[in-house]
Amino acid sequence: MITLYHCMSARSFRPLWTLEELGLTYELKMLPFPPRVRSKEFLELNRLGTVPLFTDGDTRMTESAAITQYLVTRYGGTSLAVAPEEKDYGAYLNWLHFGEATLTFPQTLVLRYGRFEPPERRQPQVVEDYSRWFLARLRGIDSVLTTQPHLCGERFTAADVSVGYALMLAGYLGMEEALPAAVQAYWRRLAQRPAYQKALAAQHQAALEQGVSTVPAPLVE
Amino acid sequence: MITLYHCMSARSFRPLWTLEELGLTYELKMLPFPPRVRSKEFLELNRLGTVPLFTDGDTRMTESAAITQYLVTRYGGTSLAVAPEEKDYGAYLNWLHFGEATLTFPQTLVLRYGRFEPPERRQPQVVEDYSRWFLARLRGIDSVLTTQPHLCGERFTAADVSVGYALMLAGYLGMEEALPAAVQAYWRRLAQRPAYQKALAAQHQAALEQGVSTVPAPLVE
Repeated sequence: MITLYHCMSARSFRPLWTLEELGLTYELKMLPFPPRVRSKEFLELNRLGTVPLFTDGDTRMTESAAITQYLVTRYGGTSLAVAPEEKDYGAYLNWLHFGEATLTFPQTLVLRYGRFEPPERRQPQVVEDYSRWFLARLRGIDSVLTTQPHLCGERFTAADVSVGYALMLAGYLGMEEALPAAVQAYWRRLAQRPAYQKALAAQHQAALEQGVSTVPAPLVE
Repeated sequence: MITLYHCMSARSFRPLWTLEELGLTYELKMLPFPPRVRSKEFLELNRLGTVPLFTDGDTRMTESAAITQYLVTRYGGTSLAVAPEEKDYGAYLNWLHFGEATLTFPQTLVLRYGRFEPPERRQPQVVEDYSRWFLARLRGIDSVLTTQPHLCGERFTAADVSVGYALMLAGYLGMEEALPAAVQAYWRRLAQRPAYQKALAAQHQAALEQGVSTVPAPLVE
């Protein structure tokens, strides 16, 4: 049985979206954001206090891009995983890591020092440094997406989920219009996928049923 | 032919260490740190201006933990990769991502705002926030390493390279004594591996031959 602990539109959206792409059965446990502060009993399950927390039998994971890779490989038979013998295997792994390590972490600094910290601890210089960093790091994606519809060519893969979430988050940060044109068009295509829409609906429905606020985590003040 | 663009003891040490673990033949191209500023011709090869840049035929990668995973899977037949059907597959992927996305990125903030930026742009609060963050994120490792010698049990894997580099970097940041005892002991075991020692020697020798400073990137002022 798969269980995913999730906050509205937080990084844990990556595994949620992947579960919907794969059509798997799962239990979605919604937490208020930030869970470390607002759901202290969660610390007994995950000492880091972060989402996602993902369990599948004895498997226990906390890194959103890693869970995405795990799901498409373990529950494979689909085109969402690129196999080691395929020519795009290196690019696939690279984008999977890039989406989180290079794109999302700078965005969390913009959120932390621009929105989540109390006014006396906000750092406008850090917000500016890492907004610029995020946009600079998109240059490599831009050139790929002007010649092919997805990061690994014609086909949608787990790499698109990893990078796609960073673009979803860019929208919450008011950066969508600063994205290069090819990246904006790519993101509009991803956001039309039925599984992306189902993931949005699933988190909304689960939040209502579980009495958790439906405000997306990146917009919580 | 495998080529790795590398700065002394920067993140690109992960693929270098992995290449030595696998005993592969490779070309090591040393760059002064930061290459974006001190080796502007490198921008023609990698618009991001970051290391690693790794090429293997038509494969081109820039994420250090992803290259590590690529190498142990593509040049497999070794115990360094955990296969999808093994019970530790999820933990393996999780630690591979965790080493970079959760551990190393906060360390780069400590470096940037404590050492690399000019004095008027330094941010002591950010240095303190992310030093604390880094140490807090080690809690999950501590409990694993009190009961087993490596992250995936008895055996050394690519996950240990990913997290091991973050511990190497912690040494440069003067944080080694703040590490939990089980993590310190683990790091001492990793640093005694012949391949780790060979990687240290290889970068030193290549820097001397190529006329690049041998000062480790994290110590460049």
